[in-house]
Amino acid sequence: MLRLFLFAKALASTAFRPNDLATFADMQFSNKEDTICALSTAPGIGALALIRISGQEAFSAFQTIFSRDILSAATHTVLFGSISRKENHADILIDEVVAAIFRGPRSFTGEDTVEISCHGSTYVQAQILQVLLGAGCRMAQPGEFSLRAFANGKVDLSQAEAIADLIASSSAGAHKLAINQMKGSFSMKISALREGLIHFASLIELELDFSEEDVEFANRHDLAEMVENINREVYGLIESFAAGQAIKNGIPVAILGAPNMGKSTLLNLLLDEDKAIVSEIAGTTRDIIEDEMTIEGIKFRFIDTAGLRDTTDVVENIGIGRAMERAGRSAIVLYLCDAAETEQVDLTNALKNLEKSIGKEPLVIPVINKIDKIRDASDLHSKFNHVKDALFISAAEGVGIDELRQRLLDVSQSLTTSGSDVVVSNLRHYEALSKAREALNAVLVGIENHITGDFLAMDIRRALFHLGEITGQITTDDLLDNIFSKFCIGK
Amino acid sequence: MLRLFLFAKALASTAFRPNDLATFADMQFSNKEDTICALSTAPGIGALALIRISGQEAFSAFQTIFSRDILSAATHTVLFGSISRKENHADILIDEVVAAIFRGPRSFTGEDTVEISCHGSTYVQAQILQVLLGAGCRMAQPGEFSLRAFANGKVDLSQAEAIADLIASSSAGAHKLAINQMKGSFSMKISALREGLIHFASLIELELDFSEEDVEFANRHDLAEMVENINREVYGLIESFAAGQAIKNGIPVAILGAPNMGKSTLLNLLLDEDKAIVSEIAGTTRDIIEDEMTIEGIKFRFIDTAGLRDTTDVVENIGIGRAMERAGRSAIVLYLCDAAETEQVDLTNALKNLEKSIGKEPLVIPVINKIDKIRDASDLHSKFNHVKDALFISAAEGVGIDELRQRLLDVSQSLTTSGSDVVVSNLRHYEALSKAREALNAVLVGIENHITGDFLAMDIRRALFHLGEITGQITTDDLLDNIFSKFCIGK
Repeated sequence: MLRLFLFAKALASTAFRPNDLATFADMQFSNKEDTICALSTAPGIGALALIRISGQEAFSAFQTIFSRDILSAATHTVLFGSISRKENHADILIDEVVAAIFRGPRSFTGEDTVEISCHGSTYVQAQILQVLLGAGCRMAQPGEFSLRAFANGKVDLSQAEAIADLIASSSAGAHKLAINQMKGSFSMKISALREGLIHFASLIELELDFSEEDVEFANRHDLAEMVENINREVYGLIESFAAGQAIKNGIPVAILGAPNMGKSTLLNLLLDEDKAIVSEIAGTTRDIIEDEMTIEGIKFRFIDTAGLRDTTDVVENIGIGRAMERAGRSAIVLYLCDAAETEQVDLTNALKNLEKSIGKEPLVIPVINKIDKIRDASDLHSKFNHVKDALFISAAEGVGIDELRQRLLDVSQSLTTSGSDVVVSNLRHYEALSKAREALNAVLVGIENHITGDFLAMDIRRALFHLGEITGQITTDDLLDNIFSKFCIGK
Repeated sequence: MLRLFLFAKALASTAFRPNDLATFADMQFSNKEDTICALSTAPGIGALALIRISGQEAFSAFQTIFSRDILSAATHTVLFGSISRKENHADILIDEVVAAIFRGPRSFTGEDTVEISCHGSTYVQAQILQVLLGAGCRMAQPGEFSLRAFANGKVDLSQAEAIADLIASSSAGAHKLAINQMKGSFSMKISALREGLIHFASLIELELDFSEEDVEFANRHDLAEMVENINREVYGLIESFAAGQAIKNGIPVAILGAPNMGKSTLLNLLLDEDKAIVSEIAGTTRDIIEDEMTIEGIKFRFIDTAGLRDTTDVVENIGIGRAMERAGRSAIVLYLCDAAETEQVDLTNALKNLEKSIGKEPLVIPVINKIDKIRDASDLHSKFNHVKDALFISAAEGVGIDELRQRLLDVSQSLTTSGSDVVVSNLRHYEALSKAREALNAVLVGIENHITGDFLAMDIRRALFHLGEITGQITTDDLLDNIFSKFCIGK
């Protein structure tokens, strides 16, 4: 009976806590009793500006400087009134404002919150913050409002990070990633994976309690199967990281080719500005020149490189080395050649060599440039008809650029839609997933080698720890500092 | 009896309207039926941003993109919900926002208004504005929200202008001016002046109705007395303009003196930056160099000039001419001389000459520079004890600068506190007051010369018109365009 009771208890214990690791609930937040304030809108002059106050004393502090009764105001109401400061016992009007009242826990932070919409003069902004400091508030640290939302269970860690990503988003793709993560689809996936593991971890922990009796509550075969399933999902998420990074930071597109093929001209055309110096002299470009351009909501990062040739110029050779290295790290390579070149071009062979030197990863698009110099189009096609999927353009005259852009969009579709609907775009999540995977592999090896429950439990704990890090179920002070210090002030 | 009845009717007619002039109520505002929207916070990335919608369709337009029921929401409440756009019949989430509902007339514009507090990504801002345009709103013109507040009688014209001044205010002085004007103290003063005039205007208009009977309802002696009183007040306001301008744009302080007195060194010290080139060579400065610095809430505009001397250098001579001209337009002149100069300095005489050439207007402060080069302080004082209120400094070593700053503050006190508590800082108001004064003077001359009531009435109407222009009781389309187009978007 005791055994069964303990077994049931173990099953019920969903709140599994590895006892050698600090969990969030145990952590101390310094100053979480303080009432904080900050300008939450962009710095500078606008018609209006928003100042946010959050904390236990938010209402009482604000009441000392505000003309209307906010202590008895209902939550989610706005009051029009004036903010004043005392000077020689007289009230000096600073501004007439609208204050929105949010009573905790029904606020972003979960605490009592006031959002002040004031006139957007920098002087007024500074004055209001100054009287708030005088009323007992302190300036918020970067990300401190979001940290409090996390601490009060309003959002998990990956959702808080998604808010920062949302604020930084500048393209449709990055926006969509951030919104999905903010809605919690990623968190739910991670939680589901953790739950399965927690179940088995509980059973194995129970075995340890009964170790002298040599029982096996956790079926090793079932465990191995589940760990393999989880591992597959984790691997899928890890794989989606390249796509996530591409969406967030731009899909890297390297422009490669022999000297004088018009690579820099093409770069300038794609970026719509005079970014790279263009000349008739072969070897003009040596440094890597790059910039972003958003095409129909997809951000691309175009990279102009040194022309590939055998040269004794030391600087140019360094440039060529870097070109190949960047091409290897790119998602797409535009390989340029000259339509007007008199010799028979063995492009197929060149592409094969390229693949050999940079590896198979990037998708190579052959681009035949300078078609403006060719009189007979049929001549052109007969010359290059052996090259699969080649594009014909004139960078100098802008011919064929729309087709090139469309091709880039088509290709990017396959790159940015991973099999899973959840895409990992955060380096921290990627690293945590990679570590979780290592631990899960160790579990599988352990099962195969019939190691004892206590060793298996250690590896499962490790996997749980790293998965828990993502959503913040398990955190450390350093981790939180590192995440929230990257936020902007006022969020 | 008829006569008495008409007399009473005339007295009751406070809503006097010069019938040859368009009044605001008659004006057509183009597009005032439209529902307008704009980003109201400073452009750029912040934690949050505010987007404002105002107009008849504000609620119904916003409802089409917002997840919560706003049509039945009470005024002055905030709703947390999500903004989405339709794409292939699916709702694509753009952002989770807080929307504040203001039902007209209880809003800034007097119309139905929604203030959306969204995440501060520029992409999110643009997306929300885009779906609002799709829902039937249009982008607001600069100042259009304020124009509507004026059109709906929420603020008068000078108050609307004060809002623009408040947003632009960057010093305590400018802020105080704007706040006072926004609260309506200026408007009330103008209205009071107008009311007295309207009373007499009505009486004189009545006389015109009975012109064949040769009656005088308006006592000419009383009229003259009242017009003189009004004129005195108008003159006081006109006089306060110099102070108002000084507070708003900075008190102009010219630094004058012979070459090599350390004028540029002093400028750099006062501005706390290397603004002017400093060298041992006499005549280094030729162009006027100027910049602002706020000292304890008072903004000063420091102006470095070419050294005053007889020279044949053409460019330098132009510079000296400009120096004198700018000194004449300044409120304060710092006249520098060299403490270490061996010859007996006749500073008193130099100051007299200066006064002669630039006029009496600016307040001259004699500043004895380079005291670091003097070993014996007693020597210094005996040499300059005939100069009243002289300051002793070393610009090179920063000695005596705090005293100089304090002197500037003391002097500025007398400059910026005019007799009246109402200060005119707006050029438009200054011009309208000047024109009103001209008309009032004409009334006085007319009374003295016993001209007929119809001519007096014309001049009184003219005075009323110009006073009415200030608060917007009388406006023209051009005037409104001119005022509101200077506002920032979103206000």
